[in-house]
Amino acid sequence: MAEKIPAFQDVIDAHERIGDYVHRTPVLTSTSINRMFNASLFFKCENFQKVGAFKFRGATNAILSLSEEEARRGVGTHSSGNHAAALCLAARMQGLKAYIVMPRTAPEIKKNAVESYGGIITFCEPTLEARESGMKEIVARTGCTFVPSYNHRNIICGQGTAAKELIEDVGEFDIIVAPVGGGGLVSGTAISTRGMLSGAKVIAVEPAGADDAYRSFTSGKFLPSVNPRTIADGLLTSLGDLTFRVIMEHVDEIVTVSEESIIAAMRLLWERMKIVVEPSGAVPLAGILERKIDVEGKRIGLILSGGNADLSKLPF
Amino acid sequence: MAEKIPAFQDVIDAHERIGDYVHRTPVLTSTSINRMFNASLFFKCENFQKVGAFKFRGATNAILSLSEEEARRGVGTHSSGNHAAALCLAARMQGLKAYIVMPRTAPEIKKNAVESYGGIITFCEPTLEARESGMKEIVARTGCTFVPSYNHRNIICGQGTAAKELIEDVGEFDIIVAPVGGGGLVSGTAISTRGMLSGAKVIAVEPAGADDAYRSFTSGKFLPSVNPRTIADGLLTSLGDLTFRVIMEHVDEIVTVSEESIIAAMRLLWERMKIVVEPSGAVPLAGILERKIDVEGKRIGLILSGGNADLSKLPF
Repeated sequence: MAEKIPAFQDVIDAHERIGDYVHRTPVLTSTSINRMFNASLFFKCENFQKVGAFKFRGATNAILSLSEEEARRGVGTHSSGNHAAALCLAARMQGLKAYIVMPRTAPEIKKNAVESYGGIITFCEPTLEARESGMKEIVARTGCTFVPSYNHRNIICGQGTAAKELIEDVGEFDIIVAPVGGGGLVSGTAISTRGMLSGAKVIAVEPAGADDAYRSFTSGKFLPSVNPRTIADGLLTSLGDLTFRVIMEHVDEIVTVSEESIIAAMRLLWERMKIVVEPSGAVPLAGILERKIDVEGKRIGLILSGGNADLSKLPF
Repeated sequence: MAEKIPAFQDVIDAHERIGDYVHRTPVLTSTSINRMFNASLFFKCENFQKVGAFKFRGATNAILSLSEEEARRGVGTHSSGNHAAALCLAARMQGLKAYIVMPRTAPEIKKNAVESYGGIITFCEPTLEARESGMKEIVARTGCTFVPSYNHRNIICGQGTAAKELIEDVGEFDIIVAPVGGGGLVSGTAISTRGMLSGAKVIAVEPAGADDAYRSFTSGKFLPSVNPRTIADGLLTSLGDLTFRVIMEHVDEIVTVSEESIIAAMRLLWERMKIVVEPSGAVPLAGILERKIDVEGKRIGLILSGGNADLSKLPF
């Protein structure tokens, strides 16, 4: 029998667990952006979260859910993105070890981030197989607990605390919008929205160049990506089996957006709101820019998922 | 006899006048930046102010200080920077006309900003003489009130409300740091600091390539800039006679910083704090980066003056 999908009570429990360690990030608004769309947009600024992304919530929840014995042996993951950095900092804050398997080819900036948070790095060839076998070897050697980056209930529930705070701070919404890659964030967002608001829609936005969630959702079949390509590097991953089921259960709609819209949305956020948002974080606003989401006269919550943009390689 | 310099009570009056129209901007902190300097740094985020800069405070105060008759005839200034945009929006919010004299050569982005806030633009040759004579002609024709960008008590008192809010929100400080160009911001900052805190130092930071305030301050003589050059385009102007006197009276120290430090400080703010700050706004942190200000173990307030960076021409 398949694992039950998490309930809103699980997000409440996660929030109590992690509340002392995560930033309660601000919710920002922009008069000029509201005027552009004749709507009330509320941006939950997870770019201001520790390590610059919502990933710190799930990682902290996973770590605080370990038994004492497990905690003693540390945690590990294979990732070169925000999840790895988040896991390292969350582990260090609890005095635990974090083992990270990372492709040799990962950008220096990401290696440095993981190192600066005290992660113990093992480099591998840049293939999924090499990452997975490298991880298995470390788990076998150290006894550490593998913490996946999205397809796990502790991760989903941790990520759901962002939308919970957004709704607590702002109140009613007509629509809550989140980006979708592996689906951890949008799954948690959907669970919180269903638990707290009646009648609000949950819409996921995905780059057209990595549209596995869109194809899986519309076909009802789990269809992983083949050669995904997008500037929104946090959204290259495919759904997992658990996040797929949460999305089928709780998400109302998935829309896709072009690379041009992602870049335009990113620039709009930087220029009008004076905040640094990474491409993946701009994807929800891209859905509104492309008029794929009807926002006229409505109250919309958007999760700005992260701010780790490479300033040396901006698309504008 | 020279005009009396403004008193803290004048800043209090300005704050009451403009409070309903300006954003009370947030004060942000960064654990990692604090750790770098072993100090507690508090950033007053005027990059989040309306039009993206503190200039909106002084402009609003100037406009709300007009008589009814003056207001009816509108306001004007010659500027292509944040002050022009600020004056246009402040005027529009009160239903007044704003006449802007701008060099033909001003960047499109600045022309567009002034237009988008409803300013009535007159283009002129790119010289100070052309700007001043263009302005005089418009004042003669329309009867509008010329609102200078820094060397005026209403402007100084408006700008001082940023430091007033910072001190109200955070409490005690050892040092308050502001950038200095024409001196409006640092004058207001110094008046508020003297009025609210006993024993706190006020330090102004200036680009070495536009160091008229430093030279004037250390020599005690008013020495305008000749051919100033700096990436911090908001700080190219020289002090005025009134701001010079306020600075001589209330500022403890002026330090200069290199272009490299300004760019490094700007990048540090973007990367660690995920906020967009223009070069001029990064100048105070550059003074700390260069160790020209001793911050070890201290509580420091910094005014981040603005966020209108040209994203197409970043220095990194």
